[in-house]
Amino acid sequence: MSGGLDDARLARVALSRLVEPGDKGVHELLDRHGAPETLDRIRAGHGRLARFAERVRRLDVDRDLTTAAKVGARVVVPGDGEWPERLDDLPVPPWCLWLRGPADLAAMTSRSVAIVGSRLCTAYGEQLAADVAAGVANRGWTVVSGAAFGIDGAAHRGALAVEGKTLAALAGGVDRAYPSAHARLIERIADAGIVLSEVAPGSAPMRTRFLQRNRLIAAMTRGTIVVEADLRSGSLNTLRTAHELGRPVGVFPGPVTSMMSAGCHEQVRTERATLVTGTADVIDLVGDFGADACDEPRGETLPTDELDPEETRVHEGLPHRAWVDLAQVSLVSALAPMQAMAVLARLVELGLAERRDGTWRKARAPRR
Amino acid sequence: MSGGLDDARLARVALSRLVEPGDKGVHELLDRHGAPETLDRIRAGHGRLARFAERVRRLDVDRDLTTAAKVGARVVVPGDGEWPERLDDLPVPPWCLWLRGPADLAAMTSRSVAIVGSRLCTAYGEQLAADVAAGVANRGWTVVSGAAFGIDGAAHRGALAVEGKTLAALAGGVDRAYPSAHARLIERIADAGIVLSEVAPGSAPMRTRFLQRNRLIAAMTRGTIVVEADLRSGSLNTLRTAHELGRPVGVFPGPVTSMMSAGCHEQVRTERATLVTGTADVIDLVGDFGADACDEPRGETLPTDELDPEETRVHEGLPHRAWVDLAQVSLVSALAPMQAMAVLARLVELGLAERRDGTWRKARAPRR
Repeated sequence: MSGGLDDARLARVALSRLVEPGDKGVHELLDRHGAPETLDRIRAGHGRLARFAERVRRLDVDRDLTTAAKVGARVVVPGDGEWPERLDDLPVPPWCLWLRGPADLAAMTSRSVAIVGSRLCTAYGEQLAADVAAGVANRGWTVVSGAAFGIDGAAHRGALAVEGKTLAALAGGVDRAYPSAHARLIERIADAGIVLSEVAPGSAPMRTRFLQRNRLIAAMTRGTIVVEADLRSGSLNTLRTAHELGRPVGVFPGPVTSMMSAGCHEQVRTERATLVTGTADVIDLVGDFGADACDEPRGETLPTDELDPEETRVHEGLPHRAWVDLAQVSLVSALAPMQAMAVLARLVELGLAERRDGTWRKARAPRR
Repeated sequence: MSGGLDDARLARVALSRLVEPGDKGVHELLDRHGAPETLDRIRAGHGRLARFAERVRRLDVDRDLTTAAKVGARVVVPGDGEWPERLDDLPVPPWCLWLRGPADLAAMTSRSVAIVGSRLCTAYGEQLAADVAAGVANRGWTVVSGAAFGIDGAAHRGALAVEGKTLAALAGGVDRAYPSAHARLIERIADAGIVLSEVAPGSAPMRTRFLQRNRLIAAMTRGTIVVEADLRSGSLNTLRTAHELGRPVGVFPGPVTSMMSAGCHEQVRTERATLVTGTADVIDLVGDFGADACDEPRGETLPTDELDPEETRVHEGLPHRAWVDLAQVSLVSALAPMQAMAVLARLVELGLAERRDGTWRKARAPRR
């Protein structure tokens, strides 16, 4: 199996089995002596390197490569065309990356945004994550997340729903779907986008590996958005890393009565993150000034330009995908149901809203 | 009626009938020549002052004072002990103030905060306004607002509910309850706190007077908080004035799907207002550094200090006044119903929560 791989590549594959992500001591060795020599020293096990003895004894690179091949995973190392340069901004970049999926990693991550948040999110957060992920994916951005329950899963699903690009970074091996209830979702991501990990196949997702995985998500994207986070959410850790790397970071607000937005609000109050309220804000924040901000040409007249303020309010309040009933429209737009009904009728007539069984949503492609 | 009033006072009373609030030309005259001479010039009606002719013809100061006396209103002018000095920060301070209520205006406004927002607010905003108003009133702050539907009314009611201090500034005369559906509320405010206006009794609440009234609210308080505001809410105008006067301004976040929070989020995004998430944030923002921030002595052990994170989450999520059911507690705390139930039982046992008919809220006075 390992016949076609050069020494440096093989050594990095071995390191991904032997050494935990983020190990500063090993990173220094690697930096000074290169991967083969670093591996040799770890094998020799002198001094502090003795701590790897048990793992060295069990090391079987061929077995790892076989396991990877079974799930169609490949290895990418620094210097490869697919290697995302942004990863080199990390104090300790990954030894290598194990990758599943048809896409080119460098291309996928060049215009990418991390959309992350709490696992125990609310229905509001879940809907929002899916909507925003669909929104940015529709504009050609790759949605990067961690495949976890809650916000992460909703973000991946939102991107997949519009056949957009999405990438999942796992804390365990790429052959281990975690959480297992997301096995089907992770397969879909691997089929359409990329599933990756910096630890060897078969590795268990451990607590410290989640933190290291979060740093990867922060580093390989242009910016990080947290949709919902309680005060101790791991997603705030991703945000912090992104901020430390100089990437723009944004958070969505929510009701102050929801502890699931408390972490987001805290980031705004402490001026560590920008408040974002929708897809346009997210793209403003992470996009290239000029290039991305102008996706919607300013000179062109949009059908929504002719709406009066009440119509605009109702239109802006309609979801892109979910269907909402009159009571919800009335609540969001702060119009009496009778008024809201009249406005909805006009929006449908203008081709700006769709109606189905007494529920409404934004029209998919407004007539021009 | 007018026998006991000095010339300057009587002249200002007359000005409040003749001249709209905020009139720069008249303010300059007043500044240069004093109130009696300004009134004389307006009566003479030369040049630009001819525009007041019709109002001069109808002027009847005794009638206005009689009308005021019938609702127990008094007049306060600059130089009076009750005059709030902060009003002199305005480019054009009021000519005089018509006041109802037993309290001393200067004392009432010395530690006061404006809590304002949209008339067409959501249930979330209404609850929040009442909770925060009750929270700051409980700490001795006066809640100042405009007695309007929605956020304003909820703020006054929140303060009244805890027998706190509250002040309503009206756009029309103090004898005219506007909106009329708030007549009972305005009476309650006049009984317990202060209802005031800068226009003469009987004056109608007109659009321009609302804007002028908003500047009063901004000027006489230490800071302004907007709870919910759509993008064109008049409360944003109050916020702007407060900001221009150098007062701290804060806004509450809400769901991005609610247009009623869009104005608030916009203020944060444009860095015109600070995000606040509860009573403590509001007091941090508008209070005197040191004096107010330490209302809750740091050295003292609170019963809540001993709570574990889940208990803290549930406790923080419980409203002070409204009763919530298990489903809501579960949603807000992001705990499974069974877990939430166990935590609630412990909070009740600790005297930190109250239970009634399968619903819960924070205990009113935690045992120490």
